Amino acid sequence: LHSKLPDIGTNIFSRMTALASECGAINLSQGFPDFPAPQALREAMARHAMHGHNQYAPLAGLPALRETLASQLVNDRGVDCDPDTEITVTPGATVAIYCAITACVHPGDEVIVLDPCYDSYEPAITLSGGRAVHVPLDAQTFTPDWDRIESAVNPKTRLIIVNSPHNPTGAVLSRHDLRCLETLATRHDLYVISDEVYEYLVYDDAAHHSVLQLEGLRERSFAVFSFGKTLGVTGWKTGYCVAPPALTSELRKIHQFVCFVAVTPVQQAIADFLHSLPGYPGQLAEDYQARRDRFCSALAGSRFRLRPAAGTYFQLLDYRDISDQPDTVLCETLARQHGVACVPVSVFSQSPDPEQRLLRFCFAKQDSQLEEAAQRLCRI
Amino acid sequence: LHSKLPDIGTNIFSRMTALASECGAINLSQGFPDFPAPQALREAMARHAMHGHNQYAPLAGLPALRETLASQLVNDRGVDCDPDTEITVTPGATVAIYCAITACVHPGDEVIVLDPCYDSYEPAITLSGGRAVHVPLDAQTFTPDWDRIESAVNPKTRLIIVNSPHNPTGAVLSRHDLRCLETLATRHDLYVISDEVYEYLVYDDAAHHSVLQLEGLRERSFAVFSFGKTLGVTGWKTGYCVAPPALTSELRKIHQFVCFVAVTPVQQAIADFLHSLPGYPGQLAEDYQARRDRFCSALAGSRFRLRPAAGTYFQLLDYRDISDQPDTVLCETLARQHGVACVPVSVFSQSPDPEQRLLRFCFAKQDSQLEEAAQRLCRI
Ligand SMILES: CSCCC(=O)C(=O)O
Ligand SMILES: CSCCC(=O)C(=O)O
Repeated sequence: LHSKLPDIGTNIFSRMTALASECGAINLSQGFPDFPAPQALREAMARHAMHGHNQYAPLAGLPALRETLASQLVNDRGVDCDPDTEITVTPGATVAIYCAITACVHPGDEVIVLDPCYDSYEPAITLSGGRAVHVPLDAQTFTPDWDRIESAVNPKTRLIIVNSPHNPTGAVLSRHDLRCLETLATRHDLYVISDEVYEYLVYDDAAHHSVLQLEGLRERSFAVFSFGKTLGVTGWKTGYCVAPPALTSELRKIHQFVCFVAVTPVQQAIADFLHSLPGYPGQLAEDYQARRDRFCSALAGSRFRLRPAAGTYFQLLDYRDISDQPDTVLCETLARQHGVACVPVSVFSQSPDPEQRLLRFCFAKQDSQLEEAAQRLCRI
Repeated sequence: LHSKLPDIGTNIFSRMTALASECGAINLSQGFPDFPAPQALREAMARHAMHGHNQYAPLAGLPALRETLASQLVNDRGVDCDPDTEITVTPGATVAIYCAITACVHPGDEVIVLDPCYDSYEPAITLSGGRAVHVPLDAQTFTPDWDRIESAVNPKTRLIIVNSPHNPTGAVLSRHDLRCLETLATRHDLYVISDEVYEYLVYDDAAHHSVLQLEGLRERSFAVFSFGKTLGVTGWKTGYCVAPPALTSELRKIHQFVCFVAVTPVQQAIADFLHSLPGYPGQLAEDYQARRDRFCSALAGSRFRLRPAAGTYFQLLDYRDISDQPDTVLCETLARQHGVACVPVSVFSQSPDPEQRLLRFCFAKQDSQLEEAAQRLCRI
């Protein structure tokens, strides 16, 4: 079979998770919590699996869930949207991103991605016959250089993909960045996919700004969200996409033939949970910030340099004072010899800076795991 | 947004289900049971949602589930396969079909589909830049005409998609048909996608023959199965694909970027259930055949002609003695004026026979529903 993705292997998260379990390392590689999701959420799922409608949901997602999401968008972001024509529930944010890319990208189109970037964007672009044009973020701050981005735009450019809070770096786009994006996208008539799956995980003075909050962006954007991240159930594989009616209509056409619908009892459980505890997502940051802080404090005695993550549940550690090895090599050593699995940052870039010495650690983990991992890292 | 699927609207099943609920009709349109799934299955799901690992599953699916499936394939079909390299669990059969099509079809390729055919195949082919070549099944028996199919093959033909038991007609491919398919696919070096989601729903003397059972087919085929259909939980959106290692590897590459993985507690629940009740799927046909028979008997006094379905949970009714209207029109009338929703068969064909007068009714419904629907149909 002539491969359409010849350069692609198994993704780094799955590989490192497999390596972690192979050598019994503490798994801080893949982004998922190792503590239980809220009990009320799990109970709602159990109830619906036992007594609910275990058959196909409506294509766009359960109306009760979409209505709850519309309220959440008003309350938490000041954004008004119509659940019938602007919200689509998907079996995970990855599917939403895939379908949005597939809706926008025609053969020969170019898509701007900002490196380092999440690993599913480029294969999706490739499968639609498009080309990903990689523009690096600033190597220190991971902020976008809007002039540099603009100079990558040409008549073939159809779409730009942004991600804030940012995986793998934890950086957060400012309101000013979104204004620049708005100017750029409007001037060059680009579509925007905004991966906002870590929207509620922002720390210290950082705030999350959604593309939905800027009129000029909203009308050309697909904003993608994840219940897996927000509710701590990555294995439930449910997310949603907010886009204006004309874009939603194309997204849904593709979505119905890619996967048809998302899982019904999961949607019902999330609808119940968010309906009864609308404030829950807004309170997440405090808990995760405390985990970040415990992990960072426990590393104070190590030889890693760190700047606390502004968002997401990933902490970068700079190992330049420890080793000259490529991050992919050190990563393997850490898992095999030091019992801590993480993810190298270079794999998220087309042309990684050869001087960059960064590893990504997921801190969505129990205190005991974070502390034991930090102790092991301090010994290096 | 320039549409990639300009001729596509909302699929017929969702439209008719929405119409049924709008006008309070008995919904025999979309294929899903209206009775509860096995209690042990629902209990397993509740247990895993409450106490299990609600985080990402491994990419290929939970090992315990894939091993159980490998045993099932040996026991029920005499097929040996390696769960690690040949079985991939997907968030529904639709995703498996989409990913298999995407793996095979390059721009300019042709794909043979047999009309009437399930509605997701062609959009998936189109999205990969391929072209669906529609070859009609026999208008009476819905059997393939292998000579006619062979004359549609040309150097651009890459893939043929078959579906048995067949949606929407209920026809079942014979062992002889599979031999012909094997000869054809081997001679012209075609890949095969075999949609076998109704594998356990075969009646009277019919038997299900899988492409996995013929050596020459197995090495070039993606065989697609559905837990939604087999376990009566269409809303759980979980299925799987069996293919040789080289094909599985391409399928998985695409699958990981389309949707990443299927839902973990659903996979765990199904693994538990099939492990403890391995004979369950094999006993399904009896129950469904009884439903088919009740529906057909209750229609004895009607003016519809029918030939009992050989497989699936769909029964065709021929209304040529009742009306000259197109099936799409009659279908709407039945829902609005007679309180029974079904699906027109013409929408599954590129060039439907203008003389054909067929409607599809799903009989995976409770007796009371089937009987009330039949009474309403008898009054026409
Ligand atoms: C969808 S795979 C895991 C993605 C993620 O959370 C990560 O970056 O580790
Ligand atoms: C995946 S949508 C419903 C498909 C089906 O079961 C049908 O043909 O009605």
